[in-house]
Amino acid sequence: MSRKLRMGMIGGGTGSFIGDVHRKAASIDGMIELVCGAFSSSAEKSMTSGKALYLPEERCYGSFEDMISKEKERPESERMDFVAIVTPNHMHFSPAKLALESGFHVVCDKPMTLTLDEAVELEKIVAKSGKLFALTHNYTGHPLVKQAKAMVANGDLGTIRKIQVQYLQGWLSTAVEKTGQKQASWRVDPKRSGIGGALGDIGTHAENLVEYITGLRINELAADLGRFGEGRILDDDGNLLLRMENGAKGTMSISQIALGEENNLAIKVYGEKGSLEWHQENPNQLITHWLEQPVKVFTPNGNDLYDEALSVSRIPAGHPEGYLEAFATIYKNFATHVMATLEEKIIEKPDYPTAKDGVRGMKFIYAAVESDKNNASWTKMKEF
Amino acid sequence: MSRKLRMGMIGGGTGSFIGDVHRKAASIDGMIELVCGAFSSSAEKSMTSGKALYLPEERCYGSFEDMISKEKERPESERMDFVAIVTPNHMHFSPAKLALESGFHVVCDKPMTLTLDEAVELEKIVAKSGKLFALTHNYTGHPLVKQAKAMVANGDLGTIRKIQVQYLQGWLSTAVEKTGQKQASWRVDPKRSGIGGALGDIGTHAENLVEYITGLRINELAADLGRFGEGRILDDDGNLLLRMENGAKGTMSISQIALGEENNLAIKVYGEKGSLEWHQENPNQLITHWLEQPVKVFTPNGNDLYDEALSVSRIPAGHPEGYLEAFATIYKNFATHVMATLEEKIIEKPDYPTAKDGVRGMKFIYAAVESDKNNASWTKMKEF
Amino acid sequence: MSRKLRMGMIGGGTGSFIGDVHRKAASIDGMIELVCGAFSSSAEKSMTSGKALYLPEERCYGSFEDMISKEKERPESERMDFVAIVTPNHMHFSPAKLALESGFHVVCDKPMTLTLDEAVELEKIVAKSGKLFALTHNYTGHPLVKQAKAMVANGDLGTIRKIQVQYLQGWLSTAVEKTGQKQASWRVDPKRSGIGGALGDIGTHAENLVEYITGLRINELAADLGRFGEGRILDDDGNLLLRMENGAKGTMSISQIALGEENNLAIKVYGEKGSLEWHQENPNQLITHWLEQPVKVFTPNGNDLYDEALSVSRIPAGHPEGYLEAFATIYKNFATHVMATLEEKIIEKPDYPTAKDGVRGMKFIYAAVESDKNNASWTKMKEF
Amino acid sequence: MSRKLRMGMIGGGTGSFIGDVHRKAASIDGMIELVCGAFSSSAEKSMTSGKALYLPEERCYGSFEDMISKEKERPESERMDFVAIVTPNHMHFSPAKLALESGFHVVCDKPMTLTLDEAVELEKIVAKSGKLFALTHNYTGHPLVKQAKAMVANGDLGTIRKIQVQYLQGWLSTAVEKTGQKQASWRVDPKRSGIGGALGDIGTHAENLVEYITGLRINELAADLGRFGEGRILDDDGNLLLRMENGAKGTMSISQIALGEENNLAIKVYGEKGSLEWHQENPNQLITHWLEQPVKVFTPNGNDLYDEALSVSRIPAGHPEGYLEAFATIYKNFATHVMATLEEKIIEKPDYPTAKDGVRGMKFIYAAVESDKNNASWTKMKEF
Repeated sequence: MSRKLRMGMIGGGTGSFIGDVHRKAASIDGMIELVCGAFSSSAEKSMTSGKALYLPEERCYGSFEDMISKEKERPESERMDFVAIVTPNHMHFSPAKLALESGFHVVCDKPMTLTLDEAVELEKIVAKSGKLFALTHNYTGHPLVKQAKAMVANGDLGTIRKIQVQYLQGWLSTAVEKTGQKQASWRVDPKRSGIGGALGDIGTHAENLVEYITGLRINELAADLGRFGEGRILDDDGNLLLRMENGAKGTMSISQIALGEENNLAIKVYGEKGSLEWHQENPNQLITHWLEQPVKVFTPNGNDLYDEALSVSRIPAGHPEGYLEAFATIYKNFATHVMATLEEKIIEKPDYPTAKDGVRGMKFIYAAVESDKNNASWTKMKEF
Repeated sequence: MSRKLRMGMIGGGTGSFIGDVHRKAASIDGMIELVCGAFSSSAEKSMTSGKALYLPEERCYGSFEDMISKEKERPESERMDFVAIVTPNHMHFSPAKLALESGFHVVCDKPMTLTLDEAVELEKIVAKSGKLFALTHNYTGHPLVKQAKAMVANGDLGTIRKIQVQYLQGWLSTAVEKTGQKQASWRVDPKRSGIGGALGDIGTHAENLVEYITGLRINELAADLGRFGEGRILDDDGNLLLRMENGAKGTMSISQIALGEENNLAIKVYGEKGSLEWHQENPNQLITHWLEQPVKVFTPNGNDLYDEALSVSRIPAGHPEGYLEAFATIYKNFATHVMATLEEKIIEKPDYPTAKDGVRGMKFIYAAVESDKNNASWTKMKEF
Repeated sequence: MSRKLRMGMIGGGTGSFIGDVHRKAASIDGMIELVCGAFSSSAEKSMTSGKALYLPEERCYGSFEDMISKEKERPESERMDFVAIVTPNHMHFSPAKLALESGFHVVCDKPMTLTLDEAVELEKIVAKSGKLFALTHNYTGHPLVKQAKAMVANGDLGTIRKIQVQYLQGWLSTAVEKTGQKQASWRVDPKRSGIGGALGDIGTHAENLVEYITGLRINELAADLGRFGEGRILDDDGNLLLRMENGAKGTMSISQIALGEENNLAIKVYGEKGSLEWHQENPNQLITHWLEQPVKVFTPNGNDLYDEALSVSRIPAGHPEGYLEAFATIYKNFATHVMATLEEKIIEKPDYPTAKDGVRGMKFIYAAVESDKNNASWTKMKEF
Repeated sequence: MSRKLRMGMIGGGTGSFIGDVHRKAASIDGMIELVCGAFSSSAEKSMTSGKALYLPEERCYGSFEDMISKEKERPESERMDFVAIVTPNHMHFSPAKLALESGFHVVCDKPMTLTLDEAVELEKIVAKSGKLFALTHNYTGHPLVKQAKAMVANGDLGTIRKIQVQYLQGWLSTAVEKTGQKQASWRVDPKRSGIGGALGDIGTHAENLVEYITGLRINELAADLGRFGEGRILDDDGNLLLRMENGAKGTMSISQIALGEENNLAIKVYGEKGSLEWHQENPNQLITHWLEQPVKVFTPNGNDLYDEALSVSRIPAGHPEGYLEAFATIYKNFATHVMATLEEKIIEKPDYPTAKDGVRGMKFIYAAVESDKNNASWTKMKEF
C-alpha cells in the first residue's frame, strides 16, 4: 500500500482520556493518520480540539453525521477510510451504524453498545455492510496474552480445569461522580452506560480475556453485584462464579471500589498439564507452572515463544511494552486487514476483536445483571 | 516458671509431615520439651519413632489411651502437661476428649474433628474440663497477619467492603492417592477426612484467616465445588462467593488441583479508607493502599507497626520468618497461657485459635457442602 | 502552532532496530511527522525503506548530504524542521555538523560521537549554530525517573551517600557478531563504535542516569573492563567504582555478557534521610525507603507525585508505560522546544538531554578506558 | 545416637540478639539441648539469663573459664558436648581456644576472631585438638544456596564470568551507637570488632557466599571504604571490585548506612551457559537464566532440584523457610558430624563452614582494609 490509512474520530475532544489513547495507539505503527474528527457535539469545541491536533478547520466537524456525509463527498484520494468511535457507550450504536452503512470501516470502544439489542443489530449491520469492525479489547494485544492463547490452543496446558480472573480498580471508592469528574459521571449513569456499571466498563474486558486466552466460552455464571457508593444505581463491584463450556470452573472478581487498585486485571488458567498467570500491570512476564519442571517465566521477544507472541513484539526483550503498545496492536491488525481489503488481498486469520466479541460482552453484562437480580442464581449466557 | 512445659504427642511418627512440623514449632522458643508420644497405633512403630527422637523407651506408647493413663500415673514433676494431636481428622476427637477429661491441655491440628457434631461436643468438653485447647491455624501466627488484624481493628481501613481469599495447591493435580502417597490417601477418603476434602484441609485455613483478620463473620456463602481427580468423592477444588455479616462481599477460591501452585494462601481486604494484601508464600511483606498516599509496604520488625505485630517478631527486619516461626507462635502463645495457668496468673487476651474457631471451621465445611449440593445456592453458616 | 514538525531521518532503514524505535517514539504524541529520509547509504535501499514508510519517492535520499541540501531548497512550508540521526556511532558527527550548519535542528542517538574530540567540537557547533540538539538518553523520559530526580532535588533524601547503578545485557554472551548479526557486528568494531564497547552502548546510559537523578557529577572512577568474547577488542563487560563530587561513593556494573539479562538497567540512591530504587524493566514503580516510615512505592499518575512526574504521564495509573513512551518524552520535550522557538516563545527549562550530556558521556568512556589501561586506577573525568 | 547433644553457651544473655538466634537454631531439629551457659561476664546476669532459659542454677556460670573447667569435671553422661560462642568478635578466640584444648567441640559466630593472627592460630588449634569447629556463616544453610552451589559445581552454568554480590543494611544510617544501642556500640569499636566494621560484620558473609556458591576463590580485590557516620573509625560502607581465581570479575557492595535496607544480601553469578540470582530477603526462589530457554525459578522442595538442596528442606514447597531454618542447618550438619564422631562413624563431606572459612574471612577483611589505605589499589588475598 502506498499510503497511510486515513482515520476520522468521533468523540475524544480535548481532555478526553480514551480519545487521546486511541490517537496515540493509532499512530505508533505509522500506518494510520488522523485526517478529521467530530470531537464534540459542540461545533466550537470540536474545532478547538481539532486545531490542537493540527487538523485543518474544514475537517473538524460539529457532528458525526456531518463528518460522515462530508467525508463521503470528498474524493477517494482524500477521504477518511474508517472512523474511530470513542464516545460514551450510549453514543456507539448510531455513529457505527451510519459509518458502516455509508461505506466506512469502524473501530469502536467497548462495551460495543448501550443495550444487547443494539449489539445484536450492529453485528448484523456489520455483516451486511461488508465493512470491517474492530472492538478495542486492547488487553488482548499484549505479546504475552498472545503467547498464553497459543499455549492453550496448542494443548501445552492440557484440559483447562480452573480459572481466576479479576479486574480491580479503586477510583470510584469515593463519590467522585459528585465532584464533577467527567470520567465518573457518565459511567455511573444508566442512560449513558447501560445496565452495567463496572460490569460494562471493566467486566467485559475480564470476560473477553478469559474467552480469548482459553478459547472456551463461559457457559453460565452466578453474579453477586455490589453498589457500595452511596446512591449508585449501577454495580460498582461484582463477585462471580463461572462455569465454562468444557466443565472448567472459576471465579471473576471486578470492582471499581477496591481502594488502591489501579488497573489490576489479572488471569490465572490451570490445566491438567500446566498452568499460566498474567498480570496487566506487569504485562511483560508470563508465569507458567508445570508438573515436573520448575516455574518458567516468559518475556516478550524472549526465549521459546510462539510466533503469535513474537510477531506482535515491537522492541527487544527487556524493554517494557505497555498499555499503548497493546492498544496499538489492535489498530495495527485492523489496519493491516483494511489495507489488505483495499488491495484485494486476503488475510487468513485477522486477529482483532470484532462485533461478535461485542455481542458476547453485552450478553455477559445482561446475564450478570439477571443473575444478580435472582440472588446470584446460575444464569446461562446463551439465554440472552 | 522454672521449667519447660512437657509435651506428649499423638500421631506424628517417622515420615509424618505434620508431626515433624509440630515438634519443630514447639521447640523453637525453648518453652516446651517433648517427653513422650503415641506416635503410631503400632507399638513397634511408635517405639522406633520415639527412639529416633531420643525419648526413653518407657515413654513411647502404643496407643493414646495407654499414654494418657500411664502419664497420669507419673509424678507431677515428670508427667506431661499437654498433648499435641497430629493424626488424620478422624482421630482428633477421641484423644482430645480423653486427654481433656484426664486433665491434660490439648493442642490439636485442624480441622478440629471429623464431623460438626464432634466439634460442637468437643467445644463443650473443653469448657467443662477447664483445660486449655489450641487449634493450629498456624498462618495467624505471622507477624504481618497480626499487623493486618490490628489495622482493621483500629479502623485504619474503615468499613470493610470487599474480600478476596484463596488457598491454592496443585499437589492433587494427578492421582497421587493411587501411588500410595500417604498424605494424599487419607485426605481423599471421607472416612478419615470427613465430608470436606480441600474444604477441610485448606479451606478452613482460608475461612479462619478471613475471620481472624477482618474480625467479621462470614454470614452466608455460595459454593461451587469441583471433583476433578478421577474417582474422587470429596472436593478437590472450590469457588465460593462470600457475604460477611457487615455487608461486605467477596470470593474464596481453594484448590488442590491448581497445577503448579504450592501453598498459595493469600488475602486482600478492601475498606473505605484503605486496603491490604498478604501472601503466605512471601509472608514478610504486607502491602497496603491508601486514598491519598502511595502504597506502603510493611515488614516484620520494620517501621510503624502495631505492638501486636512487633511482639511476635523474633528476628530483626530483613531476616525472613517463615512457616515454622508462625506455627511456633501458636505454640508459644498456648504455652504462655498454660504456664500462666500453672502459676495461677491471668492472661488478658490469649491469642491463639481455640475450639470456638474449630466449630466455625466445621460449620464452614458443612455450609459449603450443603450449598454445593443445592447448585451453589446461598447457605447461612449459622444454620449449622 | 498550526502544524506538526517535519522530521527527516538519517539511517534507520528497513530492519534497523533503533530507527524504528525513533519513528514510533516521534509519532506517539502527534507532534511530529516523518517527511523524508536518507535511510541507507545505498540509494536503492533508502528508496525501498522510504516507500515502506509511505514516503514519496522524491523525498527518499541516497545520502544525508543529498537530503540536507535538497531539503534546504524546498519551500519553508514543506521542508523538514529537524533531522534524527540513528546511524552507528561513527556516522553521528558528520551529519549532525552538516545539519546544524545548514540550519536544521538535530536529534541524535547516543553515544554522541565516535571520539571525544568530535563531541567537544560538536558541542561548539551546536552553540554556534543556534539550533537545538537532543541526545536520546531515553530512560530519563520515564515518569518515575523524573520523580526520582525531583525527590533528590527537593532534598527529600538528604545528602546522597551511596549509589548503585547497573546496565546488564546478555546478548553478546556468545559470538553473535560472527553470525552476521548486524546489531552486534558494528558494536564490537572500534571503527564504528569508538574506543568503548559496552561502555558506549549502555555504560553511557548508566552514567547519564546517575548524573540526571542525583544532580551530582561523577568526580572520578576506577574501571575494570572485561573482554570475555573471544577475539573482542572492545569491552563487553565492566565493573567500576564511582566517587561523586559531593563525596558519595558507588559501584557501576555494566555488561553485554551477563547471560540471560535483557535490559537490566537499575539504580539505587541512598541518602541521609531516604533512599530510592528504580528498575527499567519494571519502570512503573519507584521504591523508596525512609528512616521512620514503611517502604513507599510510587506509580505513574499515582498518589503524591511531584509535577515533574505527573506532567509526563500519558495514561491513568495502573496502565503501564514502557520503553517507547519514555523515548517519546524526549521527542515531545524536544518538539515542544522547537515549536516554541519557531513561534519565538521562550521555554524556561527545556527537559531533554543535550550536547553537554553527550560530552559527559564521551568523557566517561575515555576516563573508563584510561582507568582500565592503568589496572583500574582512579581517573578523574575532568582530565578529559 | 540415643541422646541429644548437650550445648553450653558463651555469651548470649538476656537481650542478646544473636544468642537467642543460636538457641532457636540449635533447637529446631531436636538434636541439641542447651544444658549450661556463661551468658555474661557478670555472674548475676548470667544466672538471671540462665534461669529464664530454665537452666538449673548450678549450670549458670559467671565466666567461660569457669564453665569449661566445671563442665569438664562432670560425668560424661551429663557434661556438655560443645560450646556455642556468641560474644562480640574480641571474645571469640580465648573461649574457642580453651574449649578446644579442653576437649570440647566449638560453634563460633563470625567473623572468627578479632585479628588475622588469631584466626591463623585458631585454625591450627582446631587441627591439633582433633575437635570439630563450625563457623556460623548461616546463609549457606538455605536450600536454594545449596542448589546454586550444586548447579555451579555440576557445570550447569559453564565457566563463571561475572559476579555481583551485595550485603546492604541501613541501621547505622544515624548515630545509633551514641544512643546506647548495644548492637551498634561494639560494632563500631575497633577494640571489640577488629579492623573491619561493616567488612567484618556483613562483608565476610558476602565473601563467604561468593566463594561457597562459585567454588572459586577471590584472587584480588580493590576496596573503597566509607566512614559516613560522624566520628566513626571503622568502615560503615564499602564498594569493591573483585577478580576471581579463574578470571571472572565482579563487584561487591556492602553497607550499614544504606538507609532503609534491612538485610539485603544478594548474589548474581553469570556463566557462559547460564546464570543465577538469589536474594536473602526472599530466599525461597532461585532465579536462573539460560541461553535458549525461558527464565526458570526454583523453589525449596520444588521440581528439578539437586539432592544437595532437597536434603536440607524441612517443609513442603510453598511453605517459606527463613533465617532460623538456614541457621539451624549449620547446627544440624555440625551436630550430625559430632554425633558421627561420638559413634566413631565417618561422614564423607561434612557441610558446614569451618576454621578454614574463618581464616578466609579475616584475610578478606585485612586485604580490603589494606586496599582502602592505598586508595583502592588491587590487593591479593594470598598476601595476608
